[in-house]
Amino acid sequence: MKAVVFKGPFNVAVENVPDPTLEQPNDAILRITTSNICGSDLHPYEGRAPLDQGMVLGHENMGVVEDVGPGVDRISVGDRVSVPFNIACGTCRNCTAGWTNACLRANPTGRPTAGYGYPMMGPYWGGQAEYLRVPWADFNLLKLPAGREHENAFTMLSDIFPTGYHGAELARVTPGDTVAVFGAGPVGLMAAHSAMIRGASQVFIVDKEPDRLELAERYGVTAVNFAEVDPTEVITDATDGTGVDCGVEAVGYQAHDPTGQEHPELVMDKLVEVVQSTGRIGVVGVYLPQDPGAATEGAQEGRIGFDYGSVFDKNIALGHGQCPVKRYNRQLRDLIIRGRAQPELIVSHELSLNEAPQAYDQFDKRIDGWTKVLLCGRSANSPGLRSSNSPGSSLGGQSIRWSWCPGP
Amino acid sequence: MKAVVFKGPFNVAVENVPDPTLEQPNDAILRITTSNICGSDLHPYEGRAPLDQGMVLGHENMGVVEDVGPGVDRISVGDRVSVPFNIACGTCRNCTAGWTNACLRANPTGRPTAGYGYPMMGPYWGGQAEYLRVPWADFNLLKLPAGREHENAFTMLSDIFPTGYHGAELARVTPGDTVAVFGAGPVGLMAAHSAMIRGASQVFIVDKEPDRLELAERYGVTAVNFAEVDPTEVITDATDGTGVDCGVEAVGYQAHDPTGQEHPELVMDKLVEVVQSTGRIGVVGVYLPQDPGAATEGAQEGRIGFDYGSVFDKNIALGHGQCPVKRYNRQLRDLIIRGRAQPELIVSHELSLNEAPQAYDQFDKRIDGWTKVLLCGRSANSPGLRSSNSPGSSLGGQSIRWSWCPGP
Amino acid sequence: MKAVVFKGPFNVAVENVPDPTLEQPNDAILRITTSNICGSDLHPYEGRAPLDQGMVLGHENMGVVEDVGPGVDRISVGDRVSVPFNIACGTCRNCTAGWTNACLRANPTGRPTAGYGYPMMGPYWGGQAEYLRVPWADFNLLKLPAGREHENAFTMLSDIFPTGYHGAELARVTPGDTVAVFGAGPVGLMAAHSAMIRGASQVFIVDKEPDRLELAERYGVTAVNFAEVDPTEVITDATDGTGVDCGVEAVGYQAHDPTGQEHPELVMDKLVEVVQSTGRIGVVGVYLPQDPGAATEGAQEGRIGFDYGSVFDKNIALGHGQCPVKRYNRQLRDLIIRGRAQPELIVSHELSLNEAPQAYDQFDKRIDGWTKVLLCGRSANSPGLRSSNSPGSSLGGQSIRWSWCPGP
Amino acid sequence: MKAVVFKGPFNVAVENVPDPTLEQPNDAILRITTSNICGSDLHPYEGRAPLDQGMVLGHENMGVVEDVGPGVDRISVGDRVSVPFNIACGTCRNCTAGWTNACLRANPTGRPTAGYGYPMMGPYWGGQAEYLRVPWADFNLLKLPAGREHENAFTMLSDIFPTGYHGAELARVTPGDTVAVFGAGPVGLMAAHSAMIRGASQVFIVDKEPDRLELAERYGVTAVNFAEVDPTEVITDATDGTGVDCGVEAVGYQAHDPTGQEHPELVMDKLVEVVQSTGRIGVVGVYLPQDPGAATEGAQEGRIGFDYGSVFDKNIALGHGQCPVKRYNRQLRDLIIRGRAQPELIVSHELSLNEAPQAYDQFDKRIDGWTKVLLCGRSANSPGLRSSNSPGSSLGGQSIRWSWCPGP
Repeated sequence: MKAVVFKGPFNVAVENVPDPTLEQPNDAILRITTSNICGSDLHPYEGRAPLDQGMVLGHENMGVVEDVGPGVDRISVGDRVSVPFNIACGTCRNCTAGWTNACLRANPTGRPTAGYGYPMMGPYWGGQAEYLRVPWADFNLLKLPAGREHENAFTMLSDIFPTGYHGAELARVTPGDTVAVFGAGPVGLMAAHSAMIRGASQVFIVDKEPDRLELAERYGVTAVNFAEVDPTEVITDATDGTGVDCGVEAVGYQAHDPTGQEHPELVMDKLVEVVQSTGRIGVVGVYLPQDPGAATEGAQEGRIGFDYGSVFDKNIALGHGQCPVKRYNRQLRDLIIRGRAQPELIVSHELSLNEAPQAYDQFDKRIDGWTKVLLCGRSANSPGLRSSNSPGSSLGGQSIRWSWCPGP
Repeated sequence: MKAVVFKGPFNVAVENVPDPTLEQPNDAILRITTSNICGSDLHPYEGRAPLDQGMVLGHENMGVVEDVGPGVDRISVGDRVSVPFNIACGTCRNCTAGWTNACLRANPTGRPTAGYGYPMMGPYWGGQAEYLRVPWADFNLLKLPAGREHENAFTMLSDIFPTGYHGAELARVTPGDTVAVFGAGPVGLMAAHSAMIRGASQVFIVDKEPDRLELAERYGVTAVNFAEVDPTEVITDATDGTGVDCGVEAVGYQAHDPTGQEHPELVMDKLVEVVQSTGRIGVVGVYLPQDPGAATEGAQEGRIGFDYGSVFDKNIALGHGQCPVKRYNRQLRDLIIRGRAQPELIVSHELSLNEAPQAYDQFDKRIDGWTKVLLCGRSANSPGLRSSNSPGSSLGGQSIRWSWCPGP
Repeated sequence: MKAVVFKGPFNVAVENVPDPTLEQPNDAILRITTSNICGSDLHPYEGRAPLDQGMVLGHENMGVVEDVGPGVDRISVGDRVSVPFNIACGTCRNCTAGWTNACLRANPTGRPTAGYGYPMMGPYWGGQAEYLRVPWADFNLLKLPAGREHENAFTMLSDIFPTGYHGAELARVTPGDTVAVFGAGPVGLMAAHSAMIRGASQVFIVDKEPDRLELAERYGVTAVNFAEVDPTEVITDATDGTGVDCGVEAVGYQAHDPTGQEHPELVMDKLVEVVQSTGRIGVVGVYLPQDPGAATEGAQEGRIGFDYGSVFDKNIALGHGQCPVKRYNRQLRDLIIRGRAQPELIVSHELSLNEAPQAYDQFDKRIDGWTKVLLCGRSANSPGLRSSNSPGSSLGGQSIRWSWCPGP
Repeated sequence: MKAVVFKGPFNVAVENVPDPTLEQPNDAILRITTSNICGSDLHPYEGRAPLDQGMVLGHENMGVVEDVGPGVDRISVGDRVSVPFNIACGTCRNCTAGWTNACLRANPTGRPTAGYGYPMMGPYWGGQAEYLRVPWADFNLLKLPAGREHENAFTMLSDIFPTGYHGAELARVTPGDTVAVFGAGPVGLMAAHSAMIRGASQVFIVDKEPDRLELAERYGVTAVNFAEVDPTEVITDATDGTGVDCGVEAVGYQAHDPTGQEHPELVMDKLVEVVQSTGRIGVVGVYLPQDPGAATEGAQEGRIGFDYGSVFDKNIALGHGQCPVKRYNRQLRDLIIRGRAQPELIVSHELSLNEAPQAYDQFDKRIDGWTKVLLCGRSANSPGLRSSNSPGSSLGGQSIRWSWCPGP
């Protein structure tokens, strides 16, 4: 099959690789219909996280079941499914407790987390390919309505919609709360959308990219451009001087100032500033225990010297980490089906697998308008790069015709 | 009246000061029967936190109501009561939500927290004195059964028993959990006791002082002496290699190595090490936004560079801050009355007010056996320093005769 | 002052009564701007719940503070405030725990609940009058932005918006859930609106009155007219045969069949039918321990023989009772201010106090279009009955001019 | 193999039946070491719940894994395991949400619940036999330490210890709470033990059997003999007139008065009486939607006319239903291993399989001292009926020698 293969930093290629096969009785094989490029795919792409050459990339996957092993009794061939980026055994202590992001058994290295096509998540090939092997298929796969409806919305269920929602959950957003989300990338936008769904009275989102902030406003969110205003001042003023109830960190360890200098403590410091006493912060932007490329010795060892004294002083609760996708994806699917969630608004590009190398290049350069890129697993004859944000099409998912990514 | 007055670093005196009076309609005046010295009293004593000269010390208070203002309708003269160290108005947003530690109205400086005789907590005199004025008495005071029974247990209800419990609550200790408490001072011991009450299957407590560890064992807690063994190794081995479910930080910013060198990130680093993936840590040891006496520039500004990358990687939840005493004190009182909690086991000394200067001196020097010192508000003729840990009396509260602290 | 006085079953009158005065140091006196008639006002009106003759009616009150006692330090003269229908002391065990609907001290009879102008809730006059005395004003009153903006929305904060929200809370509605609300009266409509605010994927509301169902649709809720279709069939079909996650009971003990025959178990039976296994039901429709007017001997003693075997078999959780308004009213206020909640859509009539007798009569007869009636406390010269639903005005609050209820 | 077979009402026999085999790839076969007789086994035994003749009884099972299917990758041959009485697929919506008692897939009838050897729980043979087939073994089985230690404690993990704990959980027992448990059978005793473990300040248990009440006292629980005193009076007095915070119903639909007349509403009425306003009740005693043997027409259809008006009036929350064993059994196992729980104290008899008919007979007659009967799956030559409560052995588990039930 054709697949997007990691060749080394700043180098991915579309190559022919062996088709996946049923290796275990509980495996399923999917034909991929959509696989997205994720911001975290850029970590290995930039050489900032170690990945083996030859690994097939892609952890945001959906498709149709082609084959199942003899132990699979819930999922059937032909089912349309979403694949959580976490690989979970479904029976260990953490999986049983709902922490499918921290499966104790799926990663052969013993590290308590596993996933597809990503550094340190195990040997599992990703889904930027025509086919994908899914372990423990009955447990991991979420069934979707048959057909192609909602494809661009459902494809967000594998990672960023639940991940954004997890940020809101870790921040315990409840009806009436005010919320500040830092970072208006796909995860930040999904966190803001989720906070609105959960009944926040007002959500602020802080970024400096006008295209992202414009998207945020489509979700009813108050955009704060930190290149133009001081977020602390704006948010404090808008909340009668008290600050917000909840914060979501959707930036991570690569936060940097306008000169490009990294300040991994920058976003946490700002959040601690704008969140009021007794508030909560959900951290879904990634921080790493080891980051050899970091600017300071401390940061290389995961030490982030933010204003922890104020965290204590303000009684702030902090929640952290990767999203257990399965905890939320069914509910979010239902919100999509019933017209109550629109994660597809952030889609900027639908491309063929062949276009993946260019897409990685453009996405990595944060070129304006490249918010979220979808790849078609089974397309072979796409006419070329196409931005769904191009003249003549309104920004957002509804206007994108799935047929641009023809199936086999 | 007689009171313990702060004269400057390492200098407290027992002096005559004006009796408190009813200043507001909702005030009450108490005759203090017991007021404890708290580890956090040492922060201003050591000059590590700024306190006005002339301030009366003491935020762990209990006594009997002597007078009430016209707005007081729940509490009556003669009631025996415990006084939460937090002063709370009872009607602001935070008080209403149960965050009495973050009252928005009680501190005239506007800082969202208030208390007695402590830096930055407002102008309220403490209770290491014969009398105490209590604002918003109906809201703040907890009624106790009349008489003198359980005095040494009930006196823990004003601060350290709820504070320890809060550590267990922030760490969300639930039945069957394993728990590691760092620091076997009074708060750490109360956290460990609380974790046991909440149904932990095993609680480890880490310290280097044998007398404190011995007390811990009386609560059924597994003592880990870090001067002798590596806590991470011991705890990991005892939990089948996974680490504990919950951690409690009961040390704070003054953690130091055996040479006396401060490492404010030390305890958090250890906790992140011993707590398993998806675990929770409750931080009740104090960290400060400003700490001019800290060893490094970062720490002076509250920046604690602990291993935050691992916090994210392990999906750890962190809760922080001062305890809202009122959230727990009624329930803990009932556990004492019904024989299910024994906070009084940690009492080492019952002294008269006059002995306060010596007590501060000894307690500050961490002299062996000075675990918890109680002062008698109304005693005048105590025969002198007395350790309840002296030969002929078994360690702990039951064997201490209250009559050593005669009332007026 | 002028007030709506209960004279006996089916008989209320507007009479002159003495002005309220400050009786306790923590009292406040309000000038009422709006007081609503509540469906539960019909219980005494119909003689179905015992009320003393001479009692001033009205527990849904808002207004402006005219005077405060010396113990009041948070609320000031001139503040615009909403008055929870619960009277709560703010310092007893239940109030402290957030159960202001179950205050242990406010009702002189010792019954653990108190309120204004309602049977068995204590001697407190209601607010369908020009002025109202509010006990423990600092605790009970919710501040509103000055002026008259949002008057028709804010007036729902005293009872039915929080009560509807409480139904959704007792049913633990969380994002993605499906919800069935039985009863599209004001409380049911507010429950449905609240469920949507909390992120329900779909809310069904069951009633037989077309005007109410039409209102429901304005909240994005799926209307089910049980006079035309079988709700169980409709709801089961719409949820893939499983039933809904959550149910809200907003009808109460007077549920009856089309012939008028009461079947107090009817609504619970239906809810148990449509709620899926492991679901939750919030019961805010009123059931009484003693109901002498009930049709059967059992029901007279509060015995409601619904299908409890299925409740057990389906693992259903049931929550019950009066709403603790203060637990939600601040958050709901903020949702109104920020344009995220529109409780005012249900207002059908704004009348003067003088028109109260006619309003009670029409409302009690369930005349079409009489959904929610507001009374103006200080109006004296209103030109007569006026339906805001009249030709020329669109249904709902926005189009209603407050000036129809002129102040003094 | 040898097995206890249901032959009809009041008739069980030990017969040779075919050995179970691996039917599905995710199955395991266990050699049973202990299988208990449960109070709910008496429902079919008494003809009160329909069961097919020929069904092998027994849903409280533990043993050692003899064989596993090819899809099983967590559990291994030789593992000592506890078997939850619920059969759960582990991948349906309810299982994923932790409701393993309401599995949507395991019961071929479509009823959302499945189990071993019990009416309406599917075609799965029970474990009062030498061997047992366990579906979805990786998900359902709980690993235990190898050997025979804690056998009598661990055998409670399959049902009654978690079921009692579930009662405390549904009643949301938290530290400091007072609790009333009605029914001191095995489940009630486990509920009381669980409430103590969760930090209740005082637990009352209400029954009329002195042997059961005596056992309760060994758990530190306050015994209330309703044959001698009025429980409402005793409990109200002991709680300063307010009543308890939490109640647990551990009796079920067969509650009867001293004459033997059934009053299925009796226990709920009492609980509503003794639980205070804002309290919670967990109902784990069984109520049935259809009960043809009930005394009244209503009760035959599951209608239990208890005082629901007071439930509303007192704001009581009710939780119901079968226990999802897997939600608690790991934590309870750890409490046993670490010496913090002693469910084995209630064991009265250890018998061989051959003695099952006599055991059913005696247990059904509620003969004094027959609290909890364990059967040895693999014993063939037991010397005969033996009460562990016989002279010379102290009541309770520790003194019972496992060797009385010799293995093959």
